[in-house]
Amino acid sequence: MSLLVRAATDNDHDAVWRIMEPVIRAGESYALARDMTRQDALAHWFAPDRSVFVAEEGGKILGTYYLRANRSGPGSHVANAGFMVADKAGGRGLGHALCEHALATAKARGFRAMQFNFVVVSNDRAVRLWQRMGFEVAGRLPRAFDHPRLGFTDALVMFRLL
Amino acid sequence: MSLLVRAATDNDHDAVWRIMEPVIRAGESYALARDMTRQDALAHWFAPDRSVFVAEEGGKILGTYYLRANRSGPGSHVANAGFMVADKAGGRGLGHALCEHALATAKARGFRAMQFNFVVVSNDRAVRLWQRMGFEVAGRLPRAFDHPRLGFTDALVMFRLL
Repeated sequence: MSLLVRAATDNDHDAVWRIMEPVIRAGESYALARDMTRQDALAHWFAPDRSVFVAEEGGKILGTYYLRANRSGPGSHVANAGFMVADKAGGRGLGHALCEHALATAKARGFRAMQFNFVVVSNDRAVRLWQRMGFEVAGRLPRAFDHPRLGFTDALVMFRLL
Repeated sequence: MSLLVRAATDNDHDAVWRIMEPVIRAGESYALARDMTRQDALAHWFAPDRSVFVAEEGGKILGTYYLRANRSGPGSHVANAGFMVADKAGGRGLGHALCEHALATAKARGFRAMQFNFVVVSNDRAVRLWQRMGFEVAGRLPRAFDHPRLGFTDALVMFRLL
């Protein structure tokens, strides 16, 4: 896959929103309001404390992730990242490539670990992928996610050292 | 204890900062930069998504807490709260009273659970208090807190239903 992962620019907002919108509207994986506006979603993804990257192939943006410090001050050595992939790009190793880029970037920036705060257990493709990428389940939040089909569902805290 | 717990107003900013400053400067319990300014600290504590309360006794503010939804949308039924108590007010049941107020307020507002995202394990008074208040350890974040004396220290995710 001739995939380029690069820093996002303002020119990528349309493409990032095209990826975000179906994920947010589905409401099955992120704790974001399903009716969130484009403006609010982009403000969230591109918040000032985040670095946003996109994965591009043949000029098309297929996925995006953000990287940030999960906490401030004495907690700022632990990174956090969030990933979204275009509907059609599933099953092609894109999540793996984005996560590998995020881990390398986080390490290069001096982070010592990466934490995912809220991985919905029913999102088993994500759970399995993060486990393959070296993340361990550090905690389980009972019924913390209100899934549109499954109802109240557990969410995982996942963690790995860098 | 003739303690009044009430919603904070703008007039409480000085008193809240007097409580926050030593906690932040000590850097032993919150993942907030130790050199955080008064303005940044108050903007954080009184962020728009939070309700702030203070505990008052004989006209003196002895403690404060904030209450908010821990996450948005499909995660917004889980509350989050943070507590700070004046140095001199330790050991008098103030933390207990504040937490009880927070749990009752959260329940009245329709939250179904409360989550603490980051309880530093070396803060054993807090850990024991939250356990007495019905919180369970839902997760453990290895070396996620850089303690000024103890170095890298684990932090707990604690959770209870309402």
